[in-house]
Amino acid sequence: MPGIPIQHQYPDDLSHCYGCGRNNDKGLHIASRWDGEEGLASFTPRPEHIALPGYVYGGLLASLVDCHGVATAAAASAGEGEGPQRYVTASLHVDFLRPTPLGPELTLRARVVERRGRKVVVDGDTGPGRAARQGAGGRRAHAPNHGPGVTATLRQAGEGFRPGGRFPEPAR
Amino acid sequence: MPGIPIQHQYPDDLSHCYGCGRNNDKGLHIASRWDGEEGLASFTPRPEHIALPGYVYGGLLASLVDCHGVATAAAASAGEGEGPQRYVTASLHVDFLRPTPLGPELTLRARVVERRGRKVVVDGDTGPGRAARQGAGGRRAHAPNHGPGVTATLRQAGEGFRPGGRFPEPAR
Repeated sequence: MPGIPIQHQYPDDLSHCYGCGRNNDKGLHIASRWDGEEGLASFTPRPEHIALPGYVYGGLLASLVDCHGVATAAAASAGEGEGPQRYVTASLHVDFLRPTPLGPELTLRARVVERRGRKVVVDGDTGPGRAARQGAGGRRAHAPNHGPGVTATLRQAGEGFRPGGRFPEPAR
Repeated sequence: MPGIPIQHQYPDDLSHCYGCGRNNDKGLHIASRWDGEEGLASFTPRPEHIALPGYVYGGLLASLVDCHGVATAAAASAGEGEGPQRYVTASLHVDFLRPTPLGPELTLRARVVERRGRKVVVDGDTGPGRAARQGAGGRRAHAPNHGPGVTATLRQAGEGFRPGGRFPEPAR
């Protein structure tokens, strides 16, 4: 998918995140894009990102879906002609549906399912190959009908803040 | 706290986890200990483990509490004279109560709060300094009364499996 990643549109001083910051030399460099309805990303775990040999580490999956959810909230909330607002995670819920094989590129999808002022709720999923569309479409993140391409689902609550302010304490 | 870390008692072939495996050269090497009632660990994030400059990355915190929760479940479930059974995470819920400053060593606590056969539920918390005791004591993980030493809370559901079996699909 073409276009500048959402995270590359964050201001310089808010681009040091270990998961997705372009200014973090040792980070994961998760890069999400917005297709007009949902956030999309892909990521290939490194050989060391394992839980057991052959299977991806759950903490990495939590990191991927967290940064991707934040970016999705930012892109979905950007006004016409504005850059994305920066979001901070208040809560993160990940259901690990089945083991994630190491090797294939993982797909990440996420979509805003609820909004109250600056607070947003994002659902998403990840897995090898093309993650099932229905995973991100407004249902509970732990809907039981994900296909085998989806190995983990996300529900995240976050809050936006304007650059220049202090890193906020999330209100929940 | 003295003693062999719980993760160092996992069998060799189940000790490659990026978060806590002694056989993962590039991993975080989270090391938890059991005090007879709860799991305890400490961890100092690396300089690159940031969300914004000066604040710890939420994905790292999720990774820490995940591996620590799994180890706590393992230690709490070990029979007399047995090594710890290995656990796999079915779901992970993290509430980020406030920003976590980078620099201080973080404390991790966790305790089993529910058990149904091989399935366990673990609550825990983390933060700089000595995390508040009440954080891990059987209440909802997102209880509102955590002191400033607690910056994030955990609720994790997991399932044990015996070494030698395949990496299981978590039942929830």
